[in-house]
Amino acid sequence: MFVNVWSLWLVLLSAIVSLVVAFLLKKKVSTADPGNEEMVKVQGYIRDGANAFVRRQYKTLAIFVGGLAIVVGIIYYIYPIETEGTNVKWWVMVLSFIVGSSASAWAGWLGMKVGVDANAKTAQAATKGLTPAFDVSFFGGAVMGLIVTSAALGGVWLLYYIIGEPIVILGFSFGASTIALFAKAGGGIFTKTADVAADLVGKIEYSLPEDDPRNPAAVADNVGDNVGDIAGMGADLFDSYVASIIGAMLLGYSVSYTGLFDLANADILASFPLVISAAGLFASIVGIYVISKMKKTSPGKALNSGTYLAAALFIGIGALFTFLLTTSSGIDTSGSGRFENMSDKLWLNYGAAAFGVIAGIIIGLTTDYYTDDSKHPTQAVAESSQQGHALNILTGFSYGLMSVAPPTLGIVVVMGISYALDGVIGVASASTGMLAIVGTIVANDAYGPIVDNARGIAEQGGLEEDVIALCDKLDSAGNTAKAVTKGFSIGAAALTVLALLYSFMEEAKLLLVDTDFVTGLDVLSVDVMIGLLLGVMIPCIYSAVLIFAVDKNAQVMVKEIRRQFEEHPGILEGTEAADFEKCIDIATVGSLKALVVPSLLSVVAPIVVGVLFGVRALGAFLAGTILIGFIFGLLLSNAGGTWDNAKKYIEDGNLGGKGTLAHAAAVTGDTVGDPFKDTAGPAINTLICVMSLTASMFLRLFVGINSGEGLIQLGTLIA
Amino acid sequence: MFVNVWSLWLVLLSAIVSLVVAFLLKKKVSTADPGNEEMVKVQGYIRDGANAFVRRQYKTLAIFVGGLAIVVGIIYYIYPIETEGTNVKWWVMVLSFIVGSSASAWAGWLGMKVGVDANAKTAQAATKGLTPAFDVSFFGGAVMGLIVTSAALGGVWLLYYIIGEPIVILGFSFGASTIALFAKAGGGIFTKTADVAADLVGKIEYSLPEDDPRNPAAVADNVGDNVGDIAGMGADLFDSYVASIIGAMLLGYSVSYTGLFDLANADILASFPLVISAAGLFASIVGIYVISKMKKTSPGKALNSGTYLAAALFIGIGALFTFLLTTSSGIDTSGSGRFENMSDKLWLNYGAAAFGVIAGIIIGLTTDYYTDDSKHPTQAVAESSQQGHALNILTGFSYGLMSVAPPTLGIVVVMGISYALDGVIGVASASTGMLAIVGTIVANDAYGPIVDNARGIAEQGGLEEDVIALCDKLDSAGNTAKAVTKGFSIGAAALTVLALLYSFMEEAKLLLVDTDFVTGLDVLSVDVMIGLLLGVMIPCIYSAVLIFAVDKNAQVMVKEIRRQFEEHPGILEGTEAADFEKCIDIATVGSLKALVVPSLLSVVAPIVVGVLFGVRALGAFLAGTILIGFIFGLLLSNAGGTWDNAKKYIEDGNLGGKGTLAHAAAVTGDTVGDPFKDTAGPAINTLICVMSLTASMFLRLFVGINSGEGLIQLGTLIA
Repeated sequence: MFVNVWSLWLVLLSAIVSLVVAFLLKKKVSTADPGNEEMVKVQGYIRDGANAFVRRQYKTLAIFVGGLAIVVGIIYYIYPIETEGTNVKWWVMVLSFIVGSSASAWAGWLGMKVGVDANAKTAQAATKGLTPAFDVSFFGGAVMGLIVTSAALGGVWLLYYIIGEPIVILGFSFGASTIALFAKAGGGIFTKTADVAADLVGKIEYSLPEDDPRNPAAVADNVGDNVGDIAGMGADLFDSYVASIIGAMLLGYSVSYTGLFDLANADILASFPLVISAAGLFASIVGIYVISKMKKTSPGKALNSGTYLAAALFIGIGALFTFLLTTSSGIDTSGSGRFENMSDKLWLNYGAAAFGVIAGIIIGLTTDYYTDDSKHPTQAVAESSQQGHALNILTGFSYGLMSVAPPTLGIVVVMGISYALDGVIGVASASTGMLAIVGTIVANDAYGPIVDNARGIAEQGGLEEDVIALCDKLDSAGNTAKAVTKGFSIGAAALTVLALLYSFMEEAKLLLVDTDFVTGLDVLSVDVMIGLLLGVMIPCIYSAVLIFAVDKNAQVMVKEIRRQFEEHPGILEGTEAADFEKCIDIATVGSLKALVVPSLLSVVAPIVVGVLFGVRALGAFLAGTILIGFIFGLLLSNAGGTWDNAKKYIEDGNLGGKGTLAHAAAVTGDTVGDPFKDTAGPAINTLICVMSLTASMFLRLFVGINSGEGLIQLGTLIA
Repeated sequence: MFVNVWSLWLVLLSAIVSLVVAFLLKKKVSTADPGNEEMVKVQGYIRDGANAFVRRQYKTLAIFVGGLAIVVGIIYYIYPIETEGTNVKWWVMVLSFIVGSSASAWAGWLGMKVGVDANAKTAQAATKGLTPAFDVSFFGGAVMGLIVTSAALGGVWLLYYIIGEPIVILGFSFGASTIALFAKAGGGIFTKTADVAADLVGKIEYSLPEDDPRNPAAVADNVGDNVGDIAGMGADLFDSYVASIIGAMLLGYSVSYTGLFDLANADILASFPLVISAAGLFASIVGIYVISKMKKTSPGKALNSGTYLAAALFIGIGALFTFLLTTSSGIDTSGSGRFENMSDKLWLNYGAAAFGVIAGIIIGLTTDYYTDDSKHPTQAVAESSQQGHALNILTGFSYGLMSVAPPTLGIVVVMGISYALDGVIGVASASTGMLAIVGTIVANDAYGPIVDNARGIAEQGGLEEDVIALCDKLDSAGNTAKAVTKGFSIGAAALTVLALLYSFMEEAKLLLVDTDFVTGLDVLSVDVMIGLLLGVMIPCIYSAVLIFAVDKNAQVMVKEIRRQFEEHPGILEGTEAADFEKCIDIATVGSLKALVVPSLLSVVAPIVVGVLFGVRALGAFLAGTILIGFIFGLLLSNAGGTWDNAKKYIEDGNLGGKGTLAHAAAVTGDTVGDPFKDTAGPAINTLICVMSLTASMFLRLFVGINSGEGLIQLGTLIA
């Protein structure tokens, strides 16, 4: 059925090369020197804590995924996929769902394992100098980046190659999204529970330095970095990556229903996001290779150069692949323009993808202005801290609000241009383009927590001051890199869920073509406005639940830390070991328990809206969540980032440094910002992705109720 | 032209009766005992400070209003109103605009004057007992309530009676909105600048009690209550009240274009919101009378009973008026149902209005759960304060997020039902119904700051402890009353701007009827999505600018207070008078300066969107601001309320009371909450109202550019 099967082989090839490189790098990490006995011990605690958390999390997930698989099976048994040319059995969808969740779980687990392994080894390598330390930590992160992309792209390729229907990949994406929800939100709660508790008691009450081994929450804090910032982040980007691909594939495939192109050409367009992604993956691999070979005088610059290089290579390789595709046989070039000529259409979508990757960098750099401590906003937050806690909070929050503007304008420009290139398909291509170099993005993002942990282990392992200073230097490189990669996550998140919304509505239009249902989402209709209102409500509740979870668990852990200090005074004197496991246990149990409401909310809410108010209300509901989620994601992440860096700015000796009111206030801001930027903020993206995919997965159910009008049939209240 | 002119006379009568009662009550306040010399002196400071602020504010306003009047004149000269049966000269619109702004400015100034007068007199009356003190303060607030309603309703009546075209009232409403923007945002910045600065230095650094006369910011704080919570609040509700009426009138009048009813019946429907409002005004007057005659054992209950009574009376009087109207001659009862029978249509809209007022009460009571200190959320915030500043902030913010749910569900239900009754006209009627008893609402709302100020003057005037305790009791009654009235403001704000959005689009449809422009707001279109994205961005910037203004001005004032304490040690010892005027001046200059950006933003932003992206994008832009404004308004107001009450809960002696870490943390929360709940939160509503009215006022300009597609013509990018 595929006219250009060679392009699909290219996709497989990229996944295989990526996997091979990942295992080569993994070997480099695993053969590195693990350091002294104390370091091995601490590293062992972290590894065991992280494994224990992931094991329990996956057990819970198994039940959740199993339950959902049954529901998916029932829905697709009752409402089978049987449109023209498409006939997918219910169990294929279930299988796809399970494969998706398994692939994501596997990639997250393996990537985290390597990340944990790289922690202590980075600290040890730092005793030998900057380059070896950078290599170990960067390779550790790169493994995650390459495994995520190869598992995602390989999985999508396999399903598409075997079954040949883009819609089946929806199940894969839904599976990956389910994992991301647990990994991101659960990991986010875990990591901030430990971080906040460690700060509240250790830093503020007992004035212990960061990562002090006497702090019973110190190891839990390190575990949190691994399960939240590495495993959670990986699962999140796995989810976005696959979702952006499936959104674009479904929209591409929808041209087959327009009658403008034949089925073979629709297949070419549907598989084009895979070709784009393969180009990005090859670019990422080269980028990673170049970074590892660069001189490491400035590790931050090395990471950013790698990202820019990957982006440039992606644009080049993407052009090459597009050229090969548009000049191969079977391409419909009978007419001209995007409605008649598939070659033109592919070039336009390639343009949108290339523009997407450039926009990602620009959005990142402009947004970074609000959190960079050499810029006005962060310094203003630090200065206002001199007037106390309240003004620190107010100033940081206000800059968080202001920081919404540049990315919003960025997204508006990207949307406008990519839509002009090829309508909603163009928007989807822009999101695929932004996420194409996700291998590099994940590698750079995972590098951060690895060196952060390395610093902790160096401290706990009693390494020299200059080694710790080197770790600090590596750590600040991570922040520099994050400035750029952040833009991709923000931009891609918004565009991806928009693409999912578009594909949801396209699919609905198709299923309702024989009814008198109109699928536009007119804001002036009552069902659409009600959907929007309910949509903007959900991320508020979700954020609140997550922040509460951190808040509550941190209070439990604070009590435990105080208990240990009181009952065992030897801990503070350094003569007795703190009970790390108790703190890890509190974070593990607390975060998994706290996931019940958010995970149910994310699946149940869209189903309730769809069943009660119908397809249009559900589309509007998704649009509402996208709008508020975009704003809240930026506000929470950037306010948190500004507070964090304002604190670091003061700790660097500015405005009187530690021990001042300004520092105390800045620590308050940082603590408030922790669950903002690392729990609620990033998890909102996952929430919206899960809700969008839930809507698409269960679309057939909603269409079955009063021809998509829902039980209440609000849309028909008024003619 | 008006078939049922008697109903319009009824409207005039309600405005006159209201004005007469207002002046009777004003006289009662002005003849009350002004208290001892010290009190007269403090009262004089407050009066002079408030007058100075208002005078300067009105001067700035005169320039702004004058400039806008010229723009309005030019636009209506170039694009005159000349549709069928309508011919309005450009200068009529300008006049209407100026009358609207003057009426609002006059009502706000007079109401504030009486409020300021009632301050010291309430304190003095408190020496004689609860009832006399309650009466003075309640009468002071009631004057504001009655003057606002009579000026608003009287002004609308006059314009409608003379010119007979609902569209002219748009100018009146736009004028009122301009004043509200300055009064609400400017007053909000003023009041919180003083409050935050007074708390930061006085309470936290020097442990002075609330309202201590040694605090140089004490008088500025009192002035702030008057200019922000009385004058600002009055202008805000004047604005919402008129906007809800004009939204409903324009939508009602739009039936004349459907051809379903004749012009006379369209007029009846267009004037129905006035009849509904007159019913509400009569109900408010009776409610105020009954409150003033009730036994005052529990002043909080008295205020709430008055609100419930006014609501019940409104439902009764509204039914009577509707009955009279539907049985008078000229009503089209030829067919049946809302499309053929005007009598049925009026009854359905009466139903929506009655439902609106009930929903207002329910929304208020459920939302109140999150800020009431006898309920779980506020107590949980207080408890988390024991773990320090950060957890206080996190817990309060989370409850603020949660508090979004009940009113959202409330609005969804009101919208669903009122839409089912009569479509968008029904929704507009529900908003008119909610705001019909605005006289009572404003009276109860203005009561709060009056007694708050009375407490301050009692403290500064050296009155006995039990008098201050009585003032505290009166103060807490204000909070109880606010619990119910708040629901009306929230619900009415959302529904009113929705009604304005609907009438904007109806008007656009009419003006573009001869083009191939389609006026639905399809979220899936790129111009609509871009409009939505830009719409959700603006309230973020606006909130940030307002919070920054408080933040920055408070820092200036903090420095001034410290300077006074350092250079004049006698102030703290009580031997030297603090320089109050300097602080008042800082707040005045700072808040007016800070208004430049937000006021330009509110008028320029919708014009830019309309000119560049066209009418649909502008409609979506408004929808975006409504959605995010609704959420932010609730989040900021309720988080602020919870923090405020958690602090009071601790100050009442719970959890160790004053002097504990919990108290210090709770003060931080309260200070953060101040600009949230009293500056940014409530001003967002005004912003959205101004933007909606700007869109409607300049609609003819946007329609003139590429047939409403805007300069960029995004909507035509893709067929």
